[in-house]
Amino acid sequence: MTNLQDFIRNIRKPVRLDTDYGFAAVGLDHGHINSMCSSLIEAGATLLYVYDRDMKKAEALAAKHGAVVVDDIRRIYGDDRVKLVASAGIPNERGPLGCDVMRHGRDYFVDKAPFTTLEQLHEAEKVCAETGRKYFVFYSERLQSECSILAGYLLEAGFIGRAVNLIGTGPHRIGLPTRPGWFFEREKYGGILCDIGSHQAEQFLYYSGCDDARVTHSAIGNFKYPEYPELDDFGEMHLTAANGVTGYHRVDWYTPDGLKSWGDGRCYLEGTEGFIEMRKNVDITVGGGNKLYLTNADGEFVIDARGTTGFPYFTALIRDSIERTETAMTQSHAFAAARLCLEAQKYAIELTGRK
Amino acid sequence: MTNLQDFIRNIRKPVRLDTDYGFAAVGLDHGHINSMCSSLIEAGATLLYVYDRDMKKAEALAAKHGAVVVDDIRRIYGDDRVKLVASAGIPNERGPLGCDVMRHGRDYFVDKAPFTTLEQLHEAEKVCAETGRKYFVFYSERLQSECSILAGYLLEAGFIGRAVNLIGTGPHRIGLPTRPGWFFEREKYGGILCDIGSHQAEQFLYYSGCDDARVTHSAIGNFKYPEYPELDDFGEMHLTAANGVTGYHRVDWYTPDGLKSWGDGRCYLEGTEGFIEMRKNVDITVGGGNKLYLTNADGEFVIDARGTTGFPYFTALIRDSIERTETAMTQSHAFAAARLCLEAQKYAIELTGRK
Repeated sequence: MTNLQDFIRNIRKPVRLDTDYGFAAVGLDHGHINSMCSSLIEAGATLLYVYDRDMKKAEALAAKHGAVVVDDIRRIYGDDRVKLVASAGIPNERGPLGCDVMRHGRDYFVDKAPFTTLEQLHEAEKVCAETGRKYFVFYSERLQSECSILAGYLLEAGFIGRAVNLIGTGPHRIGLPTRPGWFFEREKYGGILCDIGSHQAEQFLYYSGCDDARVTHSAIGNFKYPEYPELDDFGEMHLTAANGVTGYHRVDWYTPDGLKSWGDGRCYLEGTEGFIEMRKNVDITVGGGNKLYLTNADGEFVIDARGTTGFPYFTALIRDSIERTETAMTQSHAFAAARLCLEAQKYAIELTGRK
Repeated sequence: MTNLQDFIRNIRKPVRLDTDYGFAAVGLDHGHINSMCSSLIEAGATLLYVYDRDMKKAEALAAKHGAVVVDDIRRIYGDDRVKLVASAGIPNERGPLGCDVMRHGRDYFVDKAPFTTLEQLHEAEKVCAETGRKYFVFYSERLQSECSILAGYLLEAGFIGRAVNLIGTGPHRIGLPTRPGWFFEREKYGGILCDIGSHQAEQFLYYSGCDDARVTHSAIGNFKYPEYPELDDFGEMHLTAANGVTGYHRVDWYTPDGLKSWGDGRCYLEGTEGFIEMRKNVDITVGGGNKLYLTNADGEFVIDARGTTGFPYFTALIRDSIERTETAMTQSHAFAAARLCLEAQKYAIELTGRK
């Protein structure tokens, strides 16, 4: 076994691509669009156009990156330099937009949740197959978390033996005054397991090393905000992969104001020879996020994961889009994660007596 | 809301009883019998007799506490000073012994797991009802953990709002050379959810504040020790209480040698207004156990729980036995926890293809 510190030192970080890869941003409803654009640009892409029903938002994003605001999406489709459309629209509009984008011969990069219904997923699968285009999904709680990326590398390298179980928690601060109306409408946001649960499903498939999984249990409830009856403030799902790995995932909107982060997101990865805990956003009373705790036969270790891995997803995405490869994330993996969280949501037990 | 530090300072710790309460120890197969006896003695009881098929073990325990070794359990039943029999025998012998003890007019205090089959539980429920005797169970991972006891007090006092969810993990070091044969025989130890899972079921009922619960999912497997095919080295169960509180519980025998404890046992209690994490045995890379992390609107706090609560269970048990009250733990609670872990075990999904 390579020494832990040597292993980490030798991780190859992504290098900015020298490319003329152009993209557009369409649908800025969720703030995630900002990091989606910035990350693609840092990886070497160029933001050419921005389109949104809110012109002010569009102008702000365009100005930041020297892009052009358009008032008709057809102007984007009419420019051959645009290879990809990025979107963080209202969740129930994401699937239909993606199909439109792919039918116009472009790849699509969408914020999670990528869909709000299984029908949207099935339509996107069909359009992917028909057009040969890609439907990339921004599962940021792993792809933009260095301790989560590092955990994957350490697992793969054998530092904790075979993965057996994952526990993932994704509590979020609700920030009521900042939320738009669609945040509280079930049809538009899709439910908590569909929404922030989608990160969890993706992480489970990734760490289990198996995209063939099923929902073994799921439940939702509204314990705290009865004034928003369509809001799930709590959700949980248990997943079982065909290789025997299991995972429990809890999401909620209860992060108290006293926490120095929007949420104490964690992953606890149990292996036959050790375990890894990711304290993603905060290490309570200690401060800082991106802490990876690893325990195995050699001892107990804590690693500040900042700067250890970089974010290889974005350069890989651009390369995949250009070279038609699947190195960032396979299409079937992205869709399998979407299917799991949609099924978990659809068949969830209601815990708080709502109809 | 009372200030956290004031609240903790004002907790009333148990006081040693001035009593002539006598008890006997029968069945020393699990080392837990030592802390069961010591704790009762510290609370004011007197160990009068010890009986075990292994005379050496019996003599060692008796010598330590000035008790008498007997070679026939009838000598114990023949002495009216004996009010209770404590046992940590082989798990599948615990239920039958308890019924025998109760039929002889004594209360019973047994190590977890209290039973290995639902039939044994039903028999004990019947004998309890018939004789009016008590079947106390030593769920040590809460009752002998000050951070766990403190968590209950803080929850009850409203520091994190309403409890919504519990995640409990109970990884254990296997210590193969120290384990007796029955540890590996399913009929004798009952399976991992029955065994170390019983702590989890009890904690769930306690923190949920509701003894009416059902098993929503359970699974077992043997991922690491195929040479012991009857050993479950992994188990998990998801429980749902009638009041909507849910809990996920994972137990395993994978604690690596590098951990400075037999297991990184934790409980993560999510409330509508905050959350509590109990790092029971170890705080990885920091050291020490019995750490309680609380986060609510007022901030992030860490409390060294040692010395904050003492162990009120034992004095309460003795008082309950003398006064026929139910302050230590209700009989229905102890049995409900037993039923859940037995049902979880009986209906568990097999994850590793064993027959």
